Amino acid sequence: MAMSGKDLAAVDAYWRAANYLSAGQIYLLANPLPGEPLRPEHVKPRLLGHWGTTPGLNFVLAHLNRVIRERDQDMIYIAGPGHGGPAVVAHAWLEGTYSELYPEVSQDTEGMARLFRRFSFPGGVPSHAAPETPGSIHEGGELGYSLAHAYGAAFDNPGLVVACVIGDGEAETGALAASWHANKFREPGRDGHVLPILHLNGYKIANPTVLARIPERELISLMEGYGHRPYVVAGDDPAEAHERMAETLDEIFDGLDSADRPPMIILRTPKGWTGPEEVDGEPVEGTWRSHQVPLSRVREDPAHLARLEEWMRSYRPEELFEDGRPAEPVRANVPEGPRRMSANPHANGGVLLAPLVLPDFRDYAVEVKSPATGATSPTGVLGEYLRDVIARNPATFRLMGPDETASNRLSAVFEATDREWNAALLPGDENMGRGGRVMEVLSEHLCQGWLEGYLLTGRHGLFNCYEAFIHIVDSMFNQHAKWLESARRIPWRRPIASLNYLLSSHVWRQDHNGFSHQDPGFLDVVLNKKPEIVRVYLPPDANTLLSVADHCLRSRDYVNVIVAGKQPVLDLMPMDEAAAHCARGLGILPWAGNEGPDGPDVVLACAGDVPTLETLAAADLLRRHLPDLSVRVVNVVDLMRLSPPSEHPHGLPDAEFDALFTTDRPIIFDFHGYPWLIHRLTYRRHGHPNIHVRGYKEEGTTTTPFDMAMLNDIDRYHLVMDVIDRVPSLGVRAAPLRQRMADERLRKRLYTREHGEDAPDIVGWNWPAETSGGVADEEG
Amino acid sequence: MAMSGKDLAAVDAYWRAANYLSAGQIYLLANPLPGEPLRPEHVKPRLLGHWGTTPGLNFVLAHLNRVIRERDQDMIYIAGPGHGGPAVVAHAWLEGTYSELYPEVSQDTEGMARLFRRFSFPGGVPSHAAPETPGSIHEGGELGYSLAHAYGAAFDNPGLVVACVIGDGEAETGALAASWHANKFREPGRDGHVLPILHLNGYKIANPTVLARIPERELISLMEGYGHRPYVVAGDDPAEAHERMAETLDEIFDGLDSADRPPMIILRTPKGWTGPEEVDGEPVEGTWRSHQVPLSRVREDPAHLARLEEWMRSYRPEELFEDGRPAEPVRANVPEGPRRMSANPHANGGVLLAPLVLPDFRDYAVEVKSPATGATSPTGVLGEYLRDVIARNPATFRLMGPDETASNRLSAVFEATDREWNAALLPGDENMGRGGRVMEVLSEHLCQGWLEGYLLTGRHGLFNCYEAFIHIVDSMFNQHAKWLESARRIPWRRPIASLNYLLSSHVWRQDHNGFSHQDPGFLDVVLNKKPEIVRVYLPPDANTLLSVADHCLRSRDYVNVIVAGKQPVLDLMPMDEAAAHCARGLGILPWAGNEGPDGPDVVLACAGDVPTLETLAAADLLRRHLPDLSVRVVNVVDLMRLSPPSEHPHGLPDAEFDALFTTDRPIIFDFHGYPWLIHRLTYRRHGHPNIHVRGYKEEGTTTTPFDMAMLNDIDRYHLVMDVIDRVPSLGVRAAPLRQRMADERLRKRLYTREHGEDAPDIVGWNWPAETSGGVADEEG
Repeated sequence: MAMSGKDLAAVDAYWRAANYLSAGQIYLLANPLPGEPLRPEHVKPRLLGHWGTTPGLNFVLAHLNRVIRERDQDMIYIAGPGHGGPAVVAHAWLEGTYSELYPEVSQDTEGMARLFRRFSFPGGVPSHAAPETPGSIHEGGELGYSLAHAYGAAFDNPGLVVACVIGDGEAETGALAASWHANKFREPGRDGHVLPILHLNGYKIANPTVLARIPERELISLMEGYGHRPYVVAGDDPAEAHERMAETLDEIFDGLDSADRPPMIILRTPKGWTGPEEVDGEPVEGTWRSHQVPLSRVREDPAHLARLEEWMRSYRPEELFEDGRPAEPVRANVPEGPRRMSANPHANGGVLLAPLVLPDFRDYAVEVKSPATGATSPTGVLGEYLRDVIARNPATFRLMGPDETASNRLSAVFEATDREWNAALLPGDENMGRGGRVMEVLSEHLCQGWLEGYLLTGRHGLFNCYEAFIHIVDSMFNQHAKWLESARRIPWRRPIASLNYLLSSHVWRQDHNGFSHQDPGFLDVVLNKKPEIVRVYLPPDANTLLSVADHCLRSRDYVNVIVAGKQPVLDLMPMDEAAAHCARGLGILPWAGNEGPDGPDVVLACAGDVPTLETLAAADLLRRHLPDLSVRVVNVVDLMRLSPPSEHPHGLPDAEFDALFTTDRPIIFDFHGYPWLIHRLTYRRHGHPNIHVRGYKEEGTTTTPFDMAMLNDIDRYHLVMDVIDRVPSLGVRAAPLRQRMADERLRKRLYTREHGEDAPDIVGWNWPAETSGGVADEEG
Repeated sequence: MAMSGKDLAAVDAYWRAANYLSAGQIYLLANPLPGEPLRPEHVKPRLLGHWGTTPGLNFVLAHLNRVIRERDQDMIYIAGPGHGGPAVVAHAWLEGTYSELYPEVSQDTEGMARLFRRFSFPGGVPSHAAPETPGSIHEGGELGYSLAHAYGAAFDNPGLVVACVIGDGEAETGALAASWHANKFREPGRDGHVLPILHLNGYKIANPTVLARIPERELISLMEGYGHRPYVVAGDDPAEAHERMAETLDEIFDGLDSADRPPMIILRTPKGWTGPEEVDGEPVEGTWRSHQVPLSRVREDPAHLARLEEWMRSYRPEELFEDGRPAEPVRANVPEGPRRMSANPHANGGVLLAPLVLPDFRDYAVEVKSPATGATSPTGVLGEYLRDVIARNPATFRLMGPDETASNRLSAVFEATDREWNAALLPGDENMGRGGRVMEVLSEHLCQGWLEGYLLTGRHGLFNCYEAFIHIVDSMFNQHAKWLESARRIPWRRPIASLNYLLSSHVWRQDHNGFSHQDPGFLDVVLNKKPEIVRVYLPPDANTLLSVADHCLRSRDYVNVIVAGKQPVLDLMPMDEAAAHCARGLGILPWAGNEGPDGPDVVLACAGDVPTLETLAAADLLRRHLPDLSVRVVNVVDLMRLSPPSEHPHGLPDAEFDALFTTDRPIIFDFHGYPWLIHRLTYRRHGHPNIHVRGYKEEGTTTTPFDMAMLNDIDRYHLVMDVIDRVPSLGVRAAPLRQRMADERLRKRLYTREHGEDAPDIVGWNWPAETSGGVADEEG
């Protein structure tokens, strides 16, 4: 080998050691350093690892360590390829971090045996770079999010380099393909560097990859088209590859702050590099056959066993380990303390997390002298609060959104900041600029991925999105939720800021955008995840939204989903009451009902701003037209209060639930989302047989907001009809009112179809308490 | 204007007419051709359209019509940008198609008034190119899927050109970014052409777009990197732009079949082109302010009204319409009959749809002499059936999957075909080639988008995917479901083949990939859509899977979700019984229970292959250890049978449900997915209070399959414990068995942690009926 010096010798030793440890994790139960010949019982019964991507990941890790050592560079590492676990775990063990966090896995032969055994083993550690893996903020189980995570980590970390290995399989995904353009949203000087390393090992599970099979000139064009300066490192000869990689990294890091275009590396090395070239007559190294385990019958086939031993000995472990401890040539390539990528605090963001400096949300309160008389845009008010959150936390809070911040009425934030934009600016651009704290790109994947990366490295943020289109990131939510579920059980992972969603422009006010924009089903996806980490809030007005937002921004390790409209809705309560209502999570609105000392004849429950408005209007209609009927109105802000306490930490005790909702009176529940979600949450409650839920039942089109409500039977008139249908004691005396309600619905629907707007006597969207809710007054 | 001839005059006239009609749709209720001056009451009360993208879409439509006319070119048009409705509707009306399908919207002044009125009007048509829009297969409400749809439409349509306008907003999405590489999966000669037209009008809702603000050389590089030959057409002077566009299209179409690289067009024209340049002192044309309505206060502000009239008159409608009918200069640019893009049958795929030539699924049956004695991989058998489906339908069926066809054990299909691959082929590539019918790319977005485009143009297919990662396309499923929901109500839209999902490598057998790969929640997303179109099947073995697959491939206008494992499971019944069981959708497995003439003491219900196995094992344990207990086993294949008939067309009548499940006995339901889904479906059933559901409760890691079952309490031992807990009559005599079950669980869990594999007496995954299900035999 024609190494260029001691440094590269150390890099090579480190690489060989990491490869040895990776193979050991995949194969061995015992006898980690073959002092004695390998025997079948030393081998794991289930061979579950993935070798293919590992040597490439190790190669990059070894070289980055040299850069870190020589330049005292602050750097973290993201392993994009799936099943990168063996590499990242080997690295953490070589650096000593693993043994610091898991003392039983010590840096000696016994510890090495434990390291090998626990990998992909029941009760052990996953085969991805999961939360259990020191130095990881990116699991890589579901592919596509590495580069977005990398940018999120780099934002507001000016001294940091985030090295991001992107697998060529991963590169075919939509999320990754969109992420290349994230460099237009990175601000030199303020943000750290992202160094994408596109690792072309050529194969996925069973297929070649697109980017490995297009002409090199196209690939170079593509990377230049993304705005990068690509550097190609290619080869299968380790010595040459080492030299080329080292030169490339030196050139890149020498010019990091002065480069006209951000660098990226195309690393073309064989899949399963340094593993068995051929097994049973079939080529393995450099083919998809090395994706999982190159030798699959090691326990059964003595030839495979011998080949494994030969392979592992090819790394010359006797040079690399002393009594199981990394030997000097390997240790020489390990950086110091927190410079070790496996110990870098950015990759355990909770240790860096500082609470937000939050203004007092009460200062933004809407004045409410009398409930339900004024009307305010909740998100409009929230925008003012967020403006000041941004101003007071100029380097630790970002607002993400797919070009919808203004549409969602959060524009007040632009009094404090711009949208970040590092592409060309033109005269006339408004609220666009370098250094903005609002991140807008028409990719929900990028918004989500950036925010995840930002949170995982110890900062804070909020993702505002049209409600229907948040489904675009369902799977990213799932994966982040799983990360949080796992991380909470790992003592050394410190709590991070919650992932906060603000879903606005919601199903009931997407009337003008039509059916495609109407989908409240994200809540159903969210509630499939562990109750410990998911929270759903449906504040009905501006003051409750402020209180909920303050709560969410202070919370840790949750996913908080806030659904709130941007259109003006009735102001229901003064701030003190609003805060108390949100703290309780649900409660009676006494001024909205008319129950007597014997309790209600019927309970009108509601969750969501539009359902609350319609419920209030229905209660008003009932009070006017059936004054003897005793009506209770219950508003639910914190949806999880409906769950039994055995199912969710916020679950209301049964006795309280029974007291609020009764066990024997009809409950007409007007809900923001798909109706069966309420049944799912309440089916164990005593009063459940009496609960009748109205909600979105997948009827929609381009029409007026009130017509949308009628299409789905969540409107005031239908609620009154539901009450009449379910309170048998009303008897025939309610029949005329029921008919009038039905007639009103029909009249309103026809009016809307003719005139293109709501009938003028629908005062609902500004419903004052003193009106009749728009029923033509025939009673005189 | 320096037009180069009569043709371009016709193109320009057509363009002006389309622009006039688009503005009219956005603004006018009446007085469609201003014979009299516009008055406020002529204007819609709610201005809901989006002008910004429209003139560009019209420009392309006008020019493509010339190409079609001159070359008799078969072509369809995909409008990617959001809110492209006015353009595509105007086009369909100008071509006469609109009036043919909606006779009340005739080609005269009255019809034009109706056309204007119905756009974005209650009871009218959406602002996107929705199913109601003739010539559309792509709504464009949720952005990102245009190019994938275009490729799907082009596959196996060799004479067809799919012109696909991609908005520069849409281009920022992940799905679209991934779609550029679809050209590596298009086979010249067999597949039609896709002509991407990247329309850079520069702005999204409130923001500039990335691709409009990067240097032109980068943009060109990017398109070359995608493998395209880019042609730039830029300008704001209509005459020059017309000439450049016409020349470009001529050059492209002259060389269409001989081009070395597929062409694409970068069309750079102002947002809101030809609309008001300035309103109230603010620039509008060419800025984001023209995204929606350039003039917003037309009813209130006489200056806005006058400006609208001036704008509309600027198109010189007197030259374009005669008594409201398109005049000769416009008509000259309209192709004939089905060559009209608005009338092209490919865009109403149901009219072209031919049933698949299906082999008899019974021919692939696994022989089952005695239930639950043999074991077979269900997807392995399905692969043989699909092989022959592919062979018999060589141009109308495709199998999509993200590099998982082999992993999902469908490899038999490679006996009949290859994976399509139009990038470089290397020696050693297996089952890769030109003309393959299997479409594999590591992008669920592309698989889904291709299949949607393929189905919407009248063909058939199946998407096989890891269960957890199908969430990546939740939102695409939502949008396709909404398309089907709407299309079913439109008489001229003919039924299309159902969208079939095969979810394999499911939650219970992703033990080796770990937690990130474990998520059965897609079913919850699916069931939020209208019951008329969603179907969910959980066949428990190979024969039932064959029967279900045959049924799904014959169905129309549904989304069918089939969940089936790839690992061998017990063969439960011979084919005749399997087909009958699937037709009923659920039923008693008499041989698995031991109920006497008085009916069961307990019902063990199951849905899904692993839960069925565990339920059978539990029934066996109960029979052996509590022989007096009368047990009924009910297997559910068609999940929707659980719904009340009022909620789903497959819903079992209450009397039958009661007869199967009883109304008063405990029902222990072992379910494949999240448990509350069963409650959601059954909460109105009489026996619901007795239903106790086991399912995935978000516990997972890298472990053995049986350990995964135990982690989530769906295992046989826990089911026996559940029975004991819920059959009070068993009394204390069952206590020892309950304790033994608990002990067995603990012993097995510890064994697995120690040995890394299941205890040898877990015979479960090959569970033969004659064993004790792995309980250590202490009874003697």
